[in-house]
Amino acid sequence: MRALIFDLDGTLVDTVYAHVFAWQRALAESGIAIEGWRIHRRIGMSGGLFTRAVTRELGRDLSPEVAVTLQRRHGELFAQLLPERRPLNGAVELLRFLRSAGVLYGIATSGRRPEINASLEALGVGEEAVVVERGDVLRAKPEPDLFLACQERLGVRVEECYAVGDAVWDLLAARRAGMLSIGLLSGGYGEDELSRAGAFRVYRDPHELLGSLDELGVLP
Amino acid sequence: MRALIFDLDGTLVDTVYAHVFAWQRALAESGIAIEGWRIHRRIGMSGGLFTRAVTRELGRDLSPEVAVTLQRRHGELFAQLLPERRPLNGAVELLRFLRSAGVLYGIATSGRRPEINASLEALGVGEEAVVVERGDVLRAKPEPDLFLACQERLGVRVEECYAVGDAVWDLLAARRAGMLSIGLLSGGYGEDELSRAGAFRVYRDPHELLGSLDELGVLP
Repeated sequence: MRALIFDLDGTLVDTVYAHVFAWQRALAESGIAIEGWRIHRRIGMSGGLFTRAVTRELGRDLSPEVAVTLQRRHGELFAQLLPERRPLNGAVELLRFLRSAGVLYGIATSGRRPEINASLEALGVGEEAVVVERGDVLRAKPEPDLFLACQERLGVRVEECYAVGDAVWDLLAARRAGMLSIGLLSGGYGEDELSRAGAFRVYRDPHELLGSLDELGVLP
Repeated sequence: MRALIFDLDGTLVDTVYAHVFAWQRALAESGIAIEGWRIHRRIGMSGGLFTRAVTRELGRDLSPEVAVTLQRRHGELFAQLLPERRPLNGAVELLRFLRSAGVLYGIATSGRRPEINASLEALGVGEEAVVVERGDVLRAKPEPDLFLACQERLGVRVEECYAVGDAVWDLLAARRAGMLSIGLLSGGYGEDELSRAGAFRVYRDPHELLGSLDELGVLP
């Protein structure tokens, strides 16, 4: 195995709960009541897919204007709620180790620039890193496009990549991309949810993944 | 089975994610970085136990003053973040049905009055209802005291009660009380986490529980 492709929110940075809460408030402001746990289990989809999922859950249509307002308000509230970005336990060390060991890695996220810039900065990920974001592909997770675009830019074959994520959408996208996947509990899913969705291994957080690279056949 | 004893937050009202986020911000204000998922998995403990758990996680002591400040700030932030209380899907209808069917029920929560009053009001739970709160017992969940005090006030035997909760702490407390338990996914735990912690059955939310009372042997 030559490369690791990471999801960002909930996998490398501790942003999931702020996203859940920002979505819940944005929806409440538009008079839409969606329960926290239902939002949580949909984090990691693109914002567009998310609002469509909400529409189906409500059983009524959201106008395109409301959908746009919701995404904008989510972004505003998220920035207010979480002014700083905090890497998850071991995330900075894991990426640093991969660089020093010559293991390829990239980041493939349903988030967009410029919103994700603060997270990349907190992780110490520089301009040289391969980062594929929502705007780079036509379709976000659970479509495989983000992972495949990242794999192509890394210049490795699909069979040589692990996709690493905290959500079942990451694992579904990985399967569809033909990649093995690794689940992390740091986004708040249960271990069994991630295993059943196809994760080859599940670790608590980036720190435990760093300590387990030997058993993944990643190190030379 | 003659009675259902309900946890409150995440089981009957949609408050878990606001609690997680309020704790995370209160901790961050005191310079303490704890990841969202680790907080989430400890919601449902008493505030005192929670701050002790955080202390152990940090590997350093929190002074009693800081612990008190944290609990106060959590309460303030929670009230700001979530001014309204929303019953979970089916919660009001479930309690109404139990009353009409003559099935006993009570609420046993690690929360305190007056903070929980708005939740009880949103649920349509009146003065006549049996509610046991943090201040009524010496030790909160995962000790069995809250469930046992509720069962005594309902005037039924332990073997005649189901404890219903969304967190592993509810299920642990139920086992220690000698009660069968039911898990709900509406607090954001995974199904397997609740089953492994001893839940006899796991339902999505109060609505699904209401539709499943027959299979629980609760109805006369």
